[in-house]
Amino acid sequence: MPVHPPQPSAMPTEPTPQHAPREHAFPVRVYWEDTDAGGIVYHASYLRFLERGRSEWLRARGVDQAGLRERERLQFAVVDMHIEWRRAARYDDALVVLTALGEARGARFDFEQRIVRGAELIVAATVRAAALDADSLKPRRLPPHVTQCFA
Amino acid sequence: MPVHPPQPSAMPTEPTPQHAPREHAFPVRVYWEDTDAGGIVYHASYLRFLERGRSEWLRARGVDQAGLRERERLQFAVVDMHIEWRRAARYDDALVVLTALGEARGARFDFEQRIVRGAELIVAATVRAAALDADSLKPRRLPPHVTQCFA
Amino acid sequence: MPVHPPQPSAMPTEPTPQHAPREHAFPVRVYWEDTDAGGIVYHASYLRFLERGRSEWLRARGVDQAGLRERERLQFAVVDMHIEWRRAARYDDALVVLTALGEARGARFDFEQRIVRGAELIVAATVRAAALDADSLKPRRLPPHVTQCFA
Amino acid sequence: MPVHPPQPSAMPTEPTPQHAPREHAFPVRVYWEDTDAGGIVYHASYLRFLERGRSEWLRARGVDQAGLRERERLQFAVVDMHIEWRRAARYDDALVVLTALGEARGARFDFEQRIVRGAELIVAATVRAAALDADSLKPRRLPPHVTQCFA
Repeated sequence: MPVHPPQPSAMPTEPTPQHAPREHAFPVRVYWEDTDAGGIVYHASYLRFLERGRSEWLRARGVDQAGLRERERLQFAVVDMHIEWRRAARYDDALVVLTALGEARGARFDFEQRIVRGAELIVAATVRAAALDADSLKPRRLPPHVTQCFA
Repeated sequence: MPVHPPQPSAMPTEPTPQHAPREHAFPVRVYWEDTDAGGIVYHASYLRFLERGRSEWLRARGVDQAGLRERERLQFAVVDMHIEWRRAARYDDALVVLTALGEARGARFDFEQRIVRGAELIVAATVRAAALDADSLKPRRLPPHVTQCFA
Repeated sequence: MPVHPPQPSAMPTEPTPQHAPREHAFPVRVYWEDTDAGGIVYHASYLRFLERGRSEWLRARGVDQAGLRERERLQFAVVDMHIEWRRAARYDDALVVLTALGEARGARFDFEQRIVRGAELIVAATVRAAALDADSLKPRRLPPHVTQCFA
Repeated sequence: MPVHPPQPSAMPTEPTPQHAPREHAFPVRVYWEDTDAGGIVYHASYLRFLERGRSEWLRARGVDQAGLRERERLQFAVVDMHIEWRRAARYDDALVVLTALGEARGARFDFEQRIVRGAELIVAATVRAAALDADSLKPRRLPPHVTQCFA
């Protein structure tokens, strides 16, 4: 499915040092629920995998999403994504979601993510998330105790 | 959630005349299955809505995806998407998926899609699909009888 | 897939007169999102279809689930289901979800539901739902203004 | 949500010795994708969790579902399920899917499954699966090399 070459500038696979050089790895197994009758993983299933990767990245940094929502009425939402499906994954494949923080500023923070199967790149995505007020759903500046976890 | 301004050049909402000026509208109701515990529609659910819109666009043009796969071993896959989540939709909302063909060339074809709630823009997406051989999953030129349906 | 005969007593397809003889019909189209790599509709997708049927049944009776939750902190949950998958549906199939209320008493109400493709029975289900307090998640008696809608 | 007492006869939680006394445990984390705007896990998501449990049970026994389908045109399908939702799980919960084989005979095999959160029972299910011919979708006797794995 590599129909067209990736845009390297829009899809950096090597994050620059100032942008979180540490890449977080999270394994995902492909189950029947993730596939479609085309015989491969349904394209939107990868967004679920990417979100698991970001959720685990946050957990690894000590950010408690459920607690933030309940106690501070702060929640995160994805606001922008560029995603390329480069190869097809199949039932039972053992994938790994790789997540690195890009820039975090104001209410928003960016991620570079990849999904790989061994050495093969399956999916590449640039994701922009935003912190929102859980009631008004308006953007809200990330509190320092959260951005400290990102550092 | 309009955290940042859209890039008009990357997200044309007014397709140029040579690129299928006719926009196809398909209604989608939001059910519990589409929402998450943040109280709003789960971000990946919109990709399912967009795909329903493209499937109905194809059906309206007389393209029979199931038949193409079975008889010609041709199937379609999404290979690239830029998507912006501009506002949050909620349980029970009546949405409309708007779909317009962009360029179609070789094995690939592009769509401009929007999801709206009344006059409000909820999601905007630029989607690149590709025709694949159903067995090898390699890109395969769109056959003339399909591109004729696109015209 | 009709491996074993249905238990007619547990799966009445003809509701008795005192149990809502009127059967509500709601069409559902099968999209790629609903299928799996087995080439057929993923078994859990039918539960989404059944829920759309119940949601539309409620809407047709004038019950506003979103409003009930917001204004009265009342929400519905499925607590018990017996479901039989009798035949496989496929991509692009046009299905119909048939819904009839069974008994409604206290906090709970039962549905008999079927999913059909033309004259073929695809899925049969007996579903028990309960009214819950949205905060405590404890069962709460259905208010009269709701049970009146059920009559 | 324990609206009504479970039927012990229909929901044996202690499998008899001749029916696979060994219970297989598989952990599942709740992500946003699994929840709905009711604030809890969407009821159909548990069927995905149960299927992951059965898939991992099969893998642990050395049954390769992808290989069976490709090489022997044999696939499995769920044909009957009785499921009770006993308590609500929430975002970020760490659940465990417990799976035990019941009877296996001819083309079909039964499972007793539970989903627990620590000592709390969240979901209990009795599941009947069937072996099908991948092309005709008709029931097909389980081959000895598979039933040997079940022993």
